[in-house]
Amino acid sequence: MKPILEVAGSFEIPEKYMELYGRYKSKLDLSLARDFDDRPDGKLVLVTAMNPTPAGEGKTLTTIGLAQALNAIGEPTIAALREPSLGPCLGMKGGATGDNKAKLMPSEDINLHFTGDLHAITSAHNLLAAMIDNHIFQGNNLQIDTGRIVWKRAMDMNDRSLRQIVVGLGEGNGSVHESGFMITTASEVMAVLCLSEDPQDLKERLSRMVVAYNMAGEMITASQIGAIDAMTVLLKDAIKPNLVQTSEGTPAIVHGGPFANIAHGCSSVIGTRTALKLAKVVVTEAGFGADLGAEKFFDIKCRQAGLKPDAAVLVVTVKALKYNGGVVKSELDGSNMEALRIGMANVVRHLENIQKFGVPVMVAINHFANDAEEEISFIIEECRHLGIKAEISEVWAKGSQGGIQMAKTLRDMLQDEPSRFAPLYPDDLSITAKIETIVKEIYRGEGIKLTPKAEIKIRDLERQGFGHLPVCMAKTPYSFSDQGNLLGAPNHFTMQVRDVTLSAGAGFVVVHTGNIVTMPGLPEHPAAERIHLNEQGDVAGLL
Amino acid sequence: MKPILEVAGSFEIPEKYMELYGRYKSKLDLSLARDFDDRPDGKLVLVTAMNPTPAGEGKTLTTIGLAQALNAIGEPTIAALREPSLGPCLGMKGGATGDNKAKLMPSEDINLHFTGDLHAITSAHNLLAAMIDNHIFQGNNLQIDTGRIVWKRAMDMNDRSLRQIVVGLGEGNGSVHESGFMITTASEVMAVLCLSEDPQDLKERLSRMVVAYNMAGEMITASQIGAIDAMTVLLKDAIKPNLVQTSEGTPAIVHGGPFANIAHGCSSVIGTRTALKLAKVVVTEAGFGADLGAEKFFDIKCRQAGLKPDAAVLVVTVKALKYNGGVVKSELDGSNMEALRIGMANVVRHLENIQKFGVPVMVAINHFANDAEEEISFIIEECRHLGIKAEISEVWAKGSQGGIQMAKTLRDMLQDEPSRFAPLYPDDLSITAKIETIVKEIYRGEGIKLTPKAEIKIRDLERQGFGHLPVCMAKTPYSFSDQGNLLGAPNHFTMQVRDVTLSAGAGFVVVHTGNIVTMPGLPEHPAAERIHLNEQGDVAGLL
Repeated sequence: MKPILEVAGSFEIPEKYMELYGRYKSKLDLSLARDFDDRPDGKLVLVTAMNPTPAGEGKTLTTIGLAQALNAIGEPTIAALREPSLGPCLGMKGGATGDNKAKLMPSEDINLHFTGDLHAITSAHNLLAAMIDNHIFQGNNLQIDTGRIVWKRAMDMNDRSLRQIVVGLGEGNGSVHESGFMITTASEVMAVLCLSEDPQDLKERLSRMVVAYNMAGEMITASQIGAIDAMTVLLKDAIKPNLVQTSEGTPAIVHGGPFANIAHGCSSVIGTRTALKLAKVVVTEAGFGADLGAEKFFDIKCRQAGLKPDAAVLVVTVKALKYNGGVVKSELDGSNMEALRIGMANVVRHLENIQKFGVPVMVAINHFANDAEEEISFIIEECRHLGIKAEISEVWAKGSQGGIQMAKTLRDMLQDEPSRFAPLYPDDLSITAKIETIVKEIYRGEGIKLTPKAEIKIRDLERQGFGHLPVCMAKTPYSFSDQGNLLGAPNHFTMQVRDVTLSAGAGFVVVHTGNIVTMPGLPEHPAAERIHLNEQGDVAGLL
Repeated sequence: MKPILEVAGSFEIPEKYMELYGRYKSKLDLSLARDFDDRPDGKLVLVTAMNPTPAGEGKTLTTIGLAQALNAIGEPTIAALREPSLGPCLGMKGGATGDNKAKLMPSEDINLHFTGDLHAITSAHNLLAAMIDNHIFQGNNLQIDTGRIVWKRAMDMNDRSLRQIVVGLGEGNGSVHESGFMITTASEVMAVLCLSEDPQDLKERLSRMVVAYNMAGEMITASQIGAIDAMTVLLKDAIKPNLVQTSEGTPAIVHGGPFANIAHGCSSVIGTRTALKLAKVVVTEAGFGADLGAEKFFDIKCRQAGLKPDAAVLVVTVKALKYNGGVVKSELDGSNMEALRIGMANVVRHLENIQKFGVPVMVAINHFANDAEEEISFIIEECRHLGIKAEISEVWAKGSQGGIQMAKTLRDMLQDEPSRFAPLYPDDLSITAKIETIVKEIYRGEGIKLTPKAEIKIRDLERQGFGHLPVCMAKTPYSFSDQGNLLGAPNHFTMQVRDVTLSAGAGFVVVHTGNIVTMPGLPEHPAAERIHLNEQGDVAGLL
């Protein structure tokens, strides 16, 4: 690892903007983006993927490797990534910092407490929760209905026992009511932080968050609770982007990590903007597959922030194609051209979808050792029929040297194919029409079916003036549909919209198409059982 | 503020031991104390106080000012202090970093997230809680009795609604049982971290913590849950002491901050040891008044760590004397010699008590603008009759220059009066006899009365081999007795011991003499309502 000051120096970031957290991590002062405002923006590239499978597609890995490879061919590039959540690192998922030769460093720190951003978000979230209950305890001037407190509590831990709880038991401990914990990444504070332009915008967004309803059924916002200034103080460092490096010393801005179902699943706007001022190319990613991740990146993050994406890279794997073609996980290693052919439909649909946003796209085939040559060739050939370039990425094994061709193809695409980016739908479409547009254009379902509850809530939201917000789809990531077992490219389904909820601070309406768990549980053998300090005092066992 | 590297340089701390958190905060690598092991230790001075009152005694202020003044008279001195908890900063207490010209810097950072130590402790605590419930969910091989899970959850927030809760409601969310949150400073993980010698000792102490009982009534320890290694990883940076500075650039090691009733209320052993290797004099403090703070500092921290305190400074105020003499808070400003005389008994008892540990002691009169000269003279004169020097401290108004005489008196005492420190009672006294010794020798009560529950639990603990542990008294800080309204120097009371609990990792038996609240609530108008970022983007309104 190079000292982070040296990494910053290679991109001419003056030391005065750096706030070091040890030798290898730094916050970047918010004045940097302001001071560099007259510089032209670099090109913005989204790395997204086909529908995720249990085999893992390597989207973060490819993003990091691609940034390294672009630097290797002389294009000064910064990766802009999400920061991992501690809970899943200790649970099932393991770390979220790439792997082997395309990896964020120092990966253990980044996967654990990092620079404390998630802890700050947890604190801000729970201060608001404590102040709501305290308001009720001290007399309840706002006449909050204790049966309709929608603001729960947050913790960056996988703890299913906290999903649904009763608080306030015992004498003098406030009003007894149901509550629950969500994992911090699911907190609206996280989404707000990631979509904010600056501290003032952060404060205004926090103020708008809906925390409860009063006895008359009216919304109570966070600003009415009196916690907003203190929350802004708690978030004053968390809002600054973090600078680290990849295994090849490429700068990476790792900042923010919201849920990709009930939130938009992208790293922070501030981080992306800062990177765009510093580099010729910025490579970023979005959660899950392109049906969720890319759609939200375009329709929520880019729409709100006025960002113009210049290109997209769709990560596919031979295994994921076969899985989408009906092969079970244990049999993915063997060649199966028939399954590959069926699974290709998943890739094709994602490619078509991205083009609907006016964004040029290429395919990166994340290569595994036991991929057969005919399988790879098939994918490349199929893409060529669509007029889309597909390149093999061997960044896991070879770092930048495994991504040179991919980087060159991307560079050419950025030069030759101008982006005509536009969001999928206009702001002034009705909420129902927005959902229908996404379901028909992106998921390719036949339509939607609203529960009576969803219908009433949509009508209420539009009456209350929230109809102009974009929608944020909460659905299974494993399928285009709302059923996780409909793989490939399903048709002839109708999406069930069970509920809609307002994230007024984040600025979107969440559309619930299934039962989304916002607090994961631990598996039978959590990763925490394996994580330890080795004899050198270094962290080991963290995947 | 000087850059922290410069502060460290003034005490010849090589840069290689520094891990910067921004320009003004640093962790010190654990190898520092090891590498400096052959250096002689500096002198260790405890700053303690008479019983606390609502007017505030300024113990932390005096500790900081004294360290500054010692440096001003040419004695290289480091302050070793507790780190503040976020919850109370946002609640009633305000910050805990001194004030005006005797203040820790950067105070806002230190009062808020600082270097993340408390967040790391919260995470480690809650990982263990999640893994206990997950163990039960996954089949409960250990046969944990869900009615006897003693390990609760932790949060660094004042939230009374979380004191007593029911978890695991809903389908698939684990077993339904009562639980609750304590504030992070009350977590045994905090006490363990503060008493640990090194990461190995930390791990062994964490392993010994009792988390539940099984159906057969046997103890289940944290090591049986399988979380110890991961907890140690989560605490790998939190165990390193933090270096900051005072308003005059005096180095301060600010590390750890356990509760002073159910825990021992002292900053970390590692921090103290590190300071002793770096400075000629180390000034440290302990929670509440000397009846709790000094007794635990001597009988728990110094006993366990083998530290030899060289002197103590008892902080008193004219107001606190009058308060202990029966004057109500609103009338403390006027002179009242009769009340002062009565209140002096409180000071005298604390001075006698400290001398019982063989530690030379002096008095610091923390000066307020409206103290009458005759009041100050009275205190000095009364102390002189006892053969004890009392000096006025004006460090709030004047910084080091307000503490020169106090510092010189302390320096002379350190030179002329050797400490003959010994703990109050030997390890092999029975638990009941240890409690009786403290009650009779320190509190001056007539004896103790155990509830049947306490009696049974003491018998069980001794049978299980925990009889050798020191006791940690949990009682009101406002009185020598177990009744907060018995001010001054009460006699003829009997202490009610309601319960005893084992902190096997911290290595003490907690003696509960009243209902100790381990999760504070917020007041009608929390400090969080006033804290904000001002126009310059700085934190304001944090007291």
